[in-house]
Order: sequence, then C-alpha cells, then structure tokens
Amino acid sequence: MTGLCQIVGMGPGDPELLTLKAVRCLAEADVVAWFAARGKPGHARVIAGDHVTSAARTLRFDYPYTTGVSVDDPAYLEGMGRFYDDCAAQLSEALALGRRVVVLCEGDPFLYGSAMYLFDRLSPHHRCEVVPGITGMSGCWSAACLPMVHGDDILSVLPATLDGDRLAACLAQGDAHVIMKIGRNLPKVRDALRRAGREAQAIYVERGTQPEQLCLAMERAPDRAPYFSMILVPGRRRPR
Amino acid sequence: MTGLCQIVGMGPGDPELLTLKAVRCLAEADVVAWFAARGKPGHARVIAGDHVTSAARTLRFDYPYTTGVSVDDPAYLEGMGRFYDDCAAQLSEALALGRRVVVLCEGDPFLYGSAMYLFDRLSPHHRCEVVPGITGMSGCWSAACLPMVHGDDILSVLPATLDGDRLAACLAQGDAHVIMKIGRNLPKVRDALRRAGREAQAIYVERGTQPEQLCLAMERAPDRAPYFSMILVPGRRRPR
Ligand SMILES: C[S@@+](CC[C@H](N)C(=O)[O-])C[C@H]1O[C@@H](n2cnc3c(N)ncnc32)[C@H](O)[C@@H]1O
Ligand SMILES: C[S@@+](CC[C@H](N)C(=O)[O-])C[C@H]1O[C@@H](n2cnc3c(N)ncnc32)[C@H](O)[C@@H]1O
Repeated sequence: MTGLCQIVGMGPGDPELLTLKAVRCLAEADVVAWFAARGKPGHARVIAGDHVTSAARTLRFDYPYTTGVSVDDPAYLEGMGRFYDDCAAQLSEALALGRRVVVLCEGDPFLYGSAMYLFDRLSPHHRCEVVPGITGMSGCWSAACLPMVHGDDILSVLPATLDGDRLAACLAQGDAHVIMKIGRNLPKVRDALRRAGREAQAIYVERGTQPEQLCLAMERAPDRAPYFSMILVPGRRRPR
Repeated sequence: MTGLCQIVGMGPGDPELLTLKAVRCLAEADVVAWFAARGKPGHARVIAGDHVTSAARTLRFDYPYTTGVSVDDPAYLEGMGRFYDDCAAQLSEALALGRRVVVLCEGDPFLYGSAMYLFDRLSPHHRCEVVPGITGMSGCWSAACLPMVHGDDILSVLPATLDGDRLAACLAQGDAHVIMKIGRNLPKVRDALRRAGREAQAIYVERGTQPEQLCLAMERAPDRAPYFSMILVPGRRRPR
C-alpha cells in the first residue's frame, strides 16, 4: 500500500481558474488538508469549494501564530518548525495507510507557499506530486489587463518584507516587477517605488480575480492593504 | 452587437493543466485563433486539443520569419509589426460582427506571450479579456519537484537572449532564477551560470509536463536545447 501526497495549487481566487487536474485530484482524494489562520476558513479551502467532497476526510491546520509575532524571532522559527513537523506527522499516518492525500494551496504551491515545508518533510518518505496552480501574479496582471513582460525584459518578484533600501535598489534595476506580501508593508513599498522613480507606472491590485477585486493606479491606492494584494510594474513597451 | 476577444492561456503542455475557464471559453467560441511556426501545428493549438470544437471557425497565423533572421534587424521589427497588424485586422472583422473570439496562448498570455501584440492593437477598439494560464515556469518547477522561493527570496526571470555579461551579473545577485528561451543560447547560459557560481544548483527542464519531459542537473544537461526548455535555480533553503 503506497500512499500519494498531492500538493495542489488552487489559483488566485476565481474558482473557474482551477485546473482540470486539480478538480480530478480533489474528486479522488481520501484526505484533504489545508492551512488557515485561526478563526478563518482558509483561502485555499474557500477556492476549492464543493470540489472537496463529503467522502474525503478533512484536516485543517491552524497556524500557531498570528501577525503579532516577529518573524525574525528564533522562538517563532522554532515554533513554526514544530508546527510543520506535527502537520507532516498527521499526513504521514494517512500516507502510511495508503491514502491519497491532497494539500490545498493558494496560487501555485512552490511560489512562496507554506506547503513547501510539508513537501520537504514528506518527500523523503512518501510519494509526492506537485500540481501547479495559476499564480496570484498571473491572476492579477490578467485582471488588470496589464501586459507585463515582452522580448528580453527581466521580471523580478520581490517580497514586500525586504527592507526599503533593498526594495528601492531592486526597483531601480530590471524592467518589470511584482511586489507581493504587501499588507502592512504598503508605506515602505510606496516610498521605495518613489525613490526608484517607478510609482507612476505601478498598479495596485487587491484580491485579483475575486468578487471584491480592486485595480488602481498606485498613486490612487488606499492607505491600508490587505494580505491579498500586490503591486505590478510592467516592463518596457516593445517596438510594435 | 459587441464582440468579445478572450486571450486564453493553455498552460505548459499537459492538457489537464487547462483551467475550467479556458475549457468554457473554448466551448463558447465562434472563432479560435493561434500563432504557429510554418509547417508546425502550433503548441497552443496542440494543448487545446478537442476542446476546440468543429463549431468554431479556426484562424491560424503563421509567423512570417523563422529563426534565420536577427531580431535586432529593423526590417524584422517592421515585418513583425505588419504581421501583427494583419492578424489584428482579421480578428477585428470578426469582433465587429459581434463574434466571440478566443486567441490561444502557450503558458500564461502576459508573460512573454505574442498575444500581447494583438491585445495592444485590439483593446482600444474591442472588449478584451485575459484568462491566465499555468506558466511554463510553474509547470517546470512542479514537474522537477523543486521548491523555488521561500520567505523573502527574490525571484528573477531572465530571458536567455540577454548578453552573457548581463546574465552573469543578474545570476550573481538575487536568490532564485528562471532562465527562459534557452534554445541556441544554451552555451552562453551555461557559461554565465559558471561565472556566477550557480551551475551546481541549476536544474535543466525540457518540455515540462509534456510526455517527453526531461529534468536534469545542469551539469548533465544535453549540449543542444529545444525551444521548450528552461533552467531553474532555486532560492535559499529556509530554516525549517
Ligand atoms: C505567501 S504568498 C503565496 C503566493 C501564492 N503561492 C501564489 O502563487 O501566488 C501570498 C501573497 O500572494 C499574493 N497574492 C496571491 N493571490 C493574490 C490575489 N488573488 N490578489 C492579490 N494578491 C495575491 C499577495 O501578495 C499575498 O501577500
Ligand atoms: C515566448 S516564451 C512564452 C512563455 C509562456 N507565455 C509562459 O507563460 O510560460 C517561450 C519560453 O517559455 C518556456 N517554456 C514554456 N513552456 C515550457 C515547458 N513546458 N517546458 C519548458 N520550457 C517552457 C521556454 O523557455 C520557452 O523558450
């Protein structure tokens, strides 16, 4: 009896952006697992909707920390390590019994996804497969109708958690940029865009492909950004 | 009568990686169009398979040039401009009659996709919509089971058409890298990876998610690479 762990991307939010493969994996799953912030349903679970059948056992993993804790704190890293160990142990049990386990992920699993920490722990011992999903960035630039990269443009993807000087230096180089994980980093990002002379071209996208979607020129972006937001700076216009 | 032009991503090759939305767009299309190299069926068309119904009129746009021409040649740029003008004019005609037109694209349309040149021409005059697709890079890093970016890693996407010094300089910075458009640029890319000290971590992926898929350590990559190949350099391993 060999179990199979499938780490499956759910895309940026619009449930029609699930792949045919994601739908099949969910239909065949014995166990469906996902991460969620305490008291929230979990974005990936919401996107999966009714494709999670009542035949599957569900496992919800609540993050042990909320945004109150500093991510540089060694106690945080240790606590998260123990949390992922524990989640992996629960999935391992099901896999050892030969079950098909699906882990739901926002966007694409291997682009800043927490499921990578499960993959690292499970793949040495169990059969694992990764099913790519539409990334948040593809969802956002499509929703904004913003052609992003042409010809030999360089695209850089920057987490807004970087320090302001590093962000400004990166934005001054390269051609097209995606800045993820905005949230409370918005003022720092705005300042970095200004210093790099890129604010005028930047587009702010909140909850791309979701019903409450918002696309605005950065200059008119709100002062507070939710978790599901990113900023896009398109590449050079090509000679047409 | 208002036509609708949908520019639809077909993903990296596995037909199960089509989205539910792409399948619906194809089922509802009056006209289905795609680009192809002369004498070839066109990758995007192959991926779409039987989802293109016999009810739809098909329009195949043959690229006017093959790889023999230098892309820096002004005559090339002008020729391509005229080619895109002509394609857009054909689609415009159908749109003016109120038709639903679907343009098929490899991967995600707005990431180095030719359909952006049609979008630029059509969107001022017609209703246009972009349906994101699974990118080639998501397909390749999932196929290679290669967790790519963690925490505050920076990801840069580099076209192999850049000159060698620029490539080496970019590869020496940042954390994770995707190098696209390999083909005949392979020797230059290999040299740049070596100079940046990143060859040992690099993974070569040919035709990711397709039946003939090949994933190899860069050190064992072949000497010739096809169009459908890319090189992945994963980011820093996070503390777990
Ligand atoms: C931890 S990362 C996970 C990214 C995900 N794996 C992906 O492929 O897009 C979370 C960040 O993704 C971005 N994001 C994902 N989906 C988004 C959406 N629909 N709209 C806006 N931002 C989104 C936000 O910047 C958010 O802070
Ligand atoms: C003109 S770009 C188009 C990219 C596409 N729009 C996307 O989203 O991936 C073509 C390049 O994409 C890369 N590519 C796309 N799909 C691929 C696949 N399945 N395997 C390997 N490389 C792929 C190759 O580097 C190729 O030279």
